[in-house]
Amino acid sequence: MSTAGQVIRCKAAVAWEAGKPLSVEEIEVAPPQKNEVRVKIHFTSLCHTDVYFWEAKGQNPLFPRILGHEAGGVVESVGEGVTDVQPGDHVLPIFTGECKECPHCLSEASNMCDLLRINTERGGMLHDGQTRFSKDGKPIYHFLGTSTFSEYTVVHVGQVAKINPEAPLDKVCVLSCGMSTGFGATVNVAKPKKGGSVAVFGLGAVGLAAAEGARVCEASRIIGIDLNPNRFEEAKKFGCTEFVNPKDHNKPVQEVISEMTGGGVDCSIECTGSTQAMVSAFECVHDGWGVAVLVGVPSRDDSFKTHPIHFLKERTLRGTFFGNYKPLSDIPGVVEKYMKRELELDKFITHSVPFLDINKAFEYMLRGEGLRCMIRMDA
Amino acid sequence: MSTAGQVIRCKAAVAWEAGKPLSVEEIEVAPPQKNEVRVKIHFTSLCHTDVYFWEAKGQNPLFPRILGHEAGGVVESVGEGVTDVQPGDHVLPIFTGECKECPHCLSEASNMCDLLRINTERGGMLHDGQTRFSKDGKPIYHFLGTSTFSEYTVVHVGQVAKINPEAPLDKVCVLSCGMSTGFGATVNVAKPKKGGSVAVFGLGAVGLAAAEGARVCEASRIIGIDLNPNRFEEAKKFGCTEFVNPKDHNKPVQEVISEMTGGGVDCSIECTGSTQAMVSAFECVHDGWGVAVLVGVPSRDDSFKTHPIHFLKERTLRGTFFGNYKPLSDIPGVVEKYMKRELELDKFITHSVPFLDINKAFEYMLRGEGLRCMIRMDA
Repeated sequence: MSTAGQVIRCKAAVAWEAGKPLSVEEIEVAPPQKNEVRVKIHFTSLCHTDVYFWEAKGQNPLFPRILGHEAGGVVESVGEGVTDVQPGDHVLPIFTGECKECPHCLSEASNMCDLLRINTERGGMLHDGQTRFSKDGKPIYHFLGTSTFSEYTVVHVGQVAKINPEAPLDKVCVLSCGMSTGFGATVNVAKPKKGGSVAVFGLGAVGLAAAEGARVCEASRIIGIDLNPNRFEEAKKFGCTEFVNPKDHNKPVQEVISEMTGGGVDCSIECTGSTQAMVSAFECVHDGWGVAVLVGVPSRDDSFKTHPIHFLKERTLRGTFFGNYKPLSDIPGVVEKYMKRELELDKFITHSVPFLDINKAFEYMLRGEGLRCMIRMDA
Repeated sequence: MSTAGQVIRCKAAVAWEAGKPLSVEEIEVAPPQKNEVRVKIHFTSLCHTDVYFWEAKGQNPLFPRILGHEAGGVVESVGEGVTDVQPGDHVLPIFTGECKECPHCLSEASNMCDLLRINTERGGMLHDGQTRFSKDGKPIYHFLGTSTFSEYTVVHVGQVAKINPEAPLDKVCVLSCGMSTGFGATVNVAKPKKGGSVAVFGLGAVGLAAAEGARVCEASRIIGIDLNPNRFEEAKKFGCTEFVNPKDHNKPVQEVISEMTGGGVDCSIECTGSTQAMVSAFECVHDGWGVAVLVGVPSRDDSFKTHPIHFLKERTLRGTFFGNYKPLSDIPGVVEKYMKRELELDKFITHSVPFLDINKAFEYMLRGEGLRCMIRMDA
């Protein structure tokens, strides 16, 4: 029997308050409204951003809320005006969207859609500001427009990427956020040449995805930089050929890298969000052609500071958001790269838990254990 | 009678000490040594950098010295091993060179040759560290390897661009430095699209050359920013369509520009060297695709400071040196652009003096009068 047009009762992991374990319980999911899609989530993984907003340190707390934004699922039903996807389509909900009409969507360079750009403060749907989630009539807020820690969720049609139905959702779902962010930073923005040298600052999941991008570009030297040397061995699987722990040196890490490479690397990718690492990542690239790419999200009061002569020597500094991928136009192609084995994803998925154990995924991440924990919705 | 192999006695404008008027007097110019070329200078113009090193504030003074680095001339004779040019060739001596063998010369992106990159401290020739200039046996130092304030000068073959002999040297000589620097910053680095918007910070000769580049790229809005409103009228000839004087506003100029343009310009070019202007130039470009290019040379202790979130919103910040032109490979093509009227140069040349009056050129520049003063060597 079709559930289209009906309220669906299903399980969701609700964050009732900041920092408290999620509670998996039955909630109601209203039908999709205009330009909305209701998606049955099959797999979702946990990203640092979920943990950051669950902890609610440094931002306006918004609870109760259903977190989650790295996921893969199947369209259950569509609201008025939706023609781009239909029930049964395999999709990745994505935390930032594409309206296809604004100056950003019309620009080749940008993916920062005016209408559907990431909005961490919004708790309702764009159409009417209301939530589609409730528990006994009490509204539950959305998160990033995705809220994938639920068996069913409602997403704006501009935030679902329709992908190859053959693609395994328990693997490609990590392309909804972190892996595309790091991989795209390298292949779309830094663009190392075959045989080139790349420095990656921060060997968490995003940094390793950046290293994977460098490996795919056939960089000859991929230097991983991290304060935690326990990450070095694992990082070899992602193409890293050398490692630097800034703590091992009594001079700035940019000088260490410059000496290792005869003047600097061809490009660097900063994936920590520390401004000190950003400055090092910029100053460690070679003069004449070096490109530094900033991926990590800084704190509000941070300041990036360098001597401008580093720019004058023909260095480039660029920031990127979601790896410069347009979510709907480009992500299906990245899924195809995985299908053609041009990009490896399986190695990012180090843990797996059934939905009822979702709090274990939070524990792994808080302990810094592993890269991605896959949460199986039907288990 | 050939002068090849002979010491040539000729007139040069010698800077005997910092800040004192140049003295035009007879000196001796030795024959070119290995990989050197002796050039008869026909026209030379005066650039701020000459004045800066003549004033010798903030750098190691090196006197007596023959300044000058924007010039056009004809090869008189060549030293051992020189095959790329021969007597009679029309050339532009250039303050930074191209060895065609180092990693920079082999890179498509860089023009910062390891061997012949600008060196303001060097007073002798690369081959033997000696000067080719003397007065009654006393050596006179070179400047930037060009020293064009002399009827004859000796230059490394990697610092002479061989150009179309039809090109008028009294016009194209300004391509040896300032005009190529500004024009190239726009057309090679910022690369505005047809119909795009461009902000130019600083409406001196280099900034106006950047505006000329935006005009040639068919930008629809070219916003000139300067603290001196007397420059605005003249700047219209170089394509500027609008003007902002930061002094007229009680908020940062980047906010003014952002409001004028609905979120920021497509690209900006900073041609003042002020770090405050650099920050404004960066922060006034549109998120998603904006590119800011730094041209102006900062002071030694300056610091560029911004919030890194401006990068994360997909802005790009690049520095450029000599407009990213490779001096020998690219400048002859820029001369051709002038010959085809794709680029205007005549409007940059606002004054002209005979060689004996070279100190008048310094006076014009110190008073901020005009753009380029052409110095006629044979007059």
